[in-house]
Amino acid sequence: MPYDIEIARAAEKMPISEVGEKLGIPEAALIPYGRDKAKLDARFIRGLAGREDGKLILVTAINPTPAGEGKTTTTVGLGDALQRIGKKTAICIREASLGPNFGMKGGAAGGGRAQVIPMEDMNLHFTGDFHAVTAAHNLLAAMIDNHMYWGNALEIDERRVTWRRVMDMNDRALREIIVGLGGVSNGFPRQTGFDITVASEVMACLCLASDLEDLQARLGRIVVAYRRDRSPITCADIGADGAMVVLLKEAMQPNLVQTLEHTPAFVHGGPFANIAHGCNSVIATQSALKLADYVVTEAGFGADLGAEKFFDIKCRKAGLKPAAAVIVATIRAMKMNGGLAKDQLGSENVAAVEKGCPNLGRHIANTKAFGVPVVVALNHFTSDTEAEIAAVKAYVAKQGCEAVVCRHWADGGAGAVELAEKVVHLADTGAMFAPLYPDDMGLFDKIDTIARRIYHAGDVIADKKIRDQLREWEAAGYRDLPICMAKTPFSFSTDPLLRGAPSGHTLPIREVRLSAGAGFIVVICGEIMTMPGLPRNPAAASIRLNADGEIEGLF
Amino acid sequence: MPYDIEIARAAEKMPISEVGEKLGIPEAALIPYGRDKAKLDARFIRGLAGREDGKLILVTAINPTPAGEGKTTTTVGLGDALQRIGKKTAICIREASLGPNFGMKGGAAGGGRAQVIPMEDMNLHFTGDFHAVTAAHNLLAAMIDNHMYWGNALEIDERRVTWRRVMDMNDRALREIIVGLGGVSNGFPRQTGFDITVASEVMACLCLASDLEDLQARLGRIVVAYRRDRSPITCADIGADGAMVVLLKEAMQPNLVQTLEHTPAFVHGGPFANIAHGCNSVIATQSALKLADYVVTEAGFGADLGAEKFFDIKCRKAGLKPAAAVIVATIRAMKMNGGLAKDQLGSENVAAVEKGCPNLGRHIANTKAFGVPVVVALNHFTSDTEAEIAAVKAYVAKQGCEAVVCRHWADGGAGAVELAEKVVHLADTGAMFAPLYPDDMGLFDKIDTIARRIYHAGDVIADKKIRDQLREWEAAGYRDLPICMAKTPFSFSTDPLLRGAPSGHTLPIREVRLSAGAGFIVVICGEIMTMPGLPRNPAAASIRLNADGEIEGLF
Repeated sequence: MPYDIEIARAAEKMPISEVGEKLGIPEAALIPYGRDKAKLDARFIRGLAGREDGKLILVTAINPTPAGEGKTTTTVGLGDALQRIGKKTAICIREASLGPNFGMKGGAAGGGRAQVIPMEDMNLHFTGDFHAVTAAHNLLAAMIDNHMYWGNALEIDERRVTWRRVMDMNDRALREIIVGLGGVSNGFPRQTGFDITVASEVMACLCLASDLEDLQARLGRIVVAYRRDRSPITCADIGADGAMVVLLKEAMQPNLVQTLEHTPAFVHGGPFANIAHGCNSVIATQSALKLADYVVTEAGFGADLGAEKFFDIKCRKAGLKPAAAVIVATIRAMKMNGGLAKDQLGSENVAAVEKGCPNLGRHIANTKAFGVPVVVALNHFTSDTEAEIAAVKAYVAKQGCEAVVCRHWADGGAGAVELAEKVVHLADTGAMFAPLYPDDMGLFDKIDTIARRIYHAGDVIADKKIRDQLREWEAAGYRDLPICMAKTPFSFSTDPLLRGAPSGHTLPIREVRLSAGAGFIVVICGEIMTMPGLPRNPAAASIRLNADGEIEGLF
Repeated sequence: MPYDIEIARAAEKMPISEVGEKLGIPEAALIPYGRDKAKLDARFIRGLAGREDGKLILVTAINPTPAGEGKTTTTVGLGDALQRIGKKTAICIREASLGPNFGMKGGAAGGGRAQVIPMEDMNLHFTGDFHAVTAAHNLLAAMIDNHMYWGNALEIDERRVTWRRVMDMNDRALREIIVGLGGVSNGFPRQTGFDITVASEVMACLCLASDLEDLQARLGRIVVAYRRDRSPITCADIGADGAMVVLLKEAMQPNLVQTLEHTPAFVHGGPFANIAHGCNSVIATQSALKLADYVVTEAGFGADLGAEKFFDIKCRKAGLKPAAAVIVATIRAMKMNGGLAKDQLGSENVAAVEKGCPNLGRHIANTKAFGVPVVVALNHFTSDTEAEIAAVKAYVAKQGCEAVVCRHWADGGAGAVELAEKVVHLADTGAMFAPLYPDDMGLFDKIDTIARRIYHAGDVIADKKIRDQLREWEAAGYRDLPICMAKTPFSFSTDPLLRGAPSGHTLPIREVRLSAGAGFIVVICGEIMTMPGLPRNPAAASIRLNADGEIEGLF
């Protein structure tokens, strides 16, 4: 099998106007960015309003392990397979963050014969959306310091400025900084820091907004600082919301690219999956649903975090009704959940597979509890044995579900036709989607509900300060917001080493944060890193153009 | 007369492929960015190598005054007029910086009926070039701190890291900061800061590089830090040059847009005009010269800084031979140079005009001294009187030169036809361009030559430390570099209030900096601000989308 990048480069691209034609998008509604990327014109999107929605298919996964599950690959493969069996299909995934590519992360465009192209662009500047988010975020930051500099009419307490700055770069030196040094003309010294751009609340707002007007309202509601009396100051108080929307005008238009098999792919938005909800944009998903009969999308991390947020934040707020869910699993990941180390995955071990299966079982049951029918995609690796596959299939059948072996990585859409047929069938059964908790449940009770029903935790621990803070926000009008959990993705618990399907553990809440613009309460359980660092030998040191002008070392 | 933005919005744009056709650019060589912007494919540019060059016309100006001179407007108007009289013409100007638009700066796309469009895009993200420069610059910064974090094999002295970070934003709080706070896992605390992106040496490298290979070599040579023994550490030592070029691959391709009259306009690059050379990119100018018979370009500030750097840095290094120069002046600016205040410009004052003329006269003589024939463009304002115009014409004639009244702001290209005809005539006379000083002159002597011959200074003052530093660089192999002067643009002297044509003043050198990648020595005379701040009432607070989705308040 050739490298991903070789496959991507060898791919013959369909002109992007023809990709759009598959969904009935007229050429005039596609704004070209380079030869193989386009944005969907906002006016065209507005014109779609009256149409009926296609069926929304969520691809989620078991808890991620170092073995890799292939969630994006499966999203792409399923999309290609649906197209192959004659369905009008679009896929919707997130854009990639630039910074991590210079560390050690691989690309975010799928892999093997299930990729979205142009892969290099997607892992570099793409259509500039993230740069626009960075600029909008940092304009607000500059205006806050500028406001304090020129007399501070809003009486911002400079010790209580919560709005940091962002950069799309892995740069640990910027995590904690002091700004405003150098004397009177540079403002007031204060401690702050930078997060990576995907952690920006502006990104979350962009991804949840229905249009530019809604985006401006959300940006305006962002709480950026507090006064000495602890009353909040918003982005609208600073007067930055209008200019931020101007900076985000193009970024708000979904990007259209294609898979290796020319299935239309909307790649748009990319909020962090811990302190934000980790899904592609609402506007891309909604546009795709108006244009295609089947829309395949994915959520971040495993189903405990990603699918739960997809359902309880994105679907709830955007009025989306998912028709089916695919849970991606691999034999290798089952083995790791069953207790094996990464170097023990090469040989057959049916017992370990069986021991790991309850992790998958829990995700199946959780997802079904949202009223969404489930199929398991067993993403095939060459080391998988018949006996191991049979063990998973038998286990899944016992959960009242079906596991389908998929070979899209090696064979493209042809390798996922059985999965596609199963998905079409499931989506016709009539899902009865409902979020996990009602809007008007108390904030702490919402957290408790997620902890007990999704994580199977025995208890939720939060000190008085946190409970008081939650009550304060309820009183301030934020009671109706959903919860955005930030915990380790590697376990149902907060202990990343506790694999499988643990029960009765304790969920300790470390911190709560208000994302009033995005519209959720972030609940942090454990250490959450919002500005990564580079490794000892960063990938950047080997990234370069070769003699033919091709990019080397990026993936 | 309607507002600039109304004219720009009402303009009917020619499809960008037809604009390219005017220069014989095949559609396949244009990479679209939106519907009315395109990048010129690098492969196409390589194929132009054998062609003969068109004629290069520089537009420069008297020392700028608050009255405004209209250099970009004249560049556009002249380009339109040359096209109007049947010449195959292109204009080459700089891209606009994003940050200042949120302060109080107007757009950088000309004005009135002499504008480049799409004006809004040009003043926002445009084709993302500046974002790419920001990312490349900050990747290098992250890799430097990361190198120190992981053991510091290069033995960087953390007190002597000269490479700062950049952001395309007016943000005074970032001028002086401490990074690396928060404990061991965030690195070593040290003082540093942010400059605005246009001040990045990466920007200067991009604008002086002949191709991607040359760009990588320049980036690799950038000195980013020193060891305790003061030996330099370069970007190539850090290993960032390859990845930086990958980030800049698209940004290195010139952008093609159009004027209101559909004259092809290359808008590419935008280095600061003080600590850098202030011209659009070499690759854009060279490409335009291969494609058009007349290429009109401009330099930053007045001719003392802008034209001198254009000739001594850009033309010297890129082997460009300018055929003629246009010096832009206005009656209003002549009056201010003659001692009037801004509120005294409304009524006729021939004496003040005549008193201000020597400023223009000095620029004429200076420009001619480079062997380039000169014409004066008297950019017409409605308040100008016949007597005032006659006074300037008479003065200019005495300098062996001609002043032509231009009305392109009100009338577009039709208002600059006389200027265009004069320029065509001058460009045929056979310029004998030569830079002011030879490469192998000593660094201090080069500074002295500029000070005496261009500024008419009587003396150059520099303390021993600066003279020693210059000698050290000479010994280290940098003797052949040209000088990049950073002083106030408002006067031939270092006193911004000293208008007219002062002589015998002293030029005090405050600091010298090595830009080894860009390839010049920066000589700083006076206070130079490399990170602007926002004003009390920033423009950003009034920038917004109106009910029709149009941008308001940007200009």
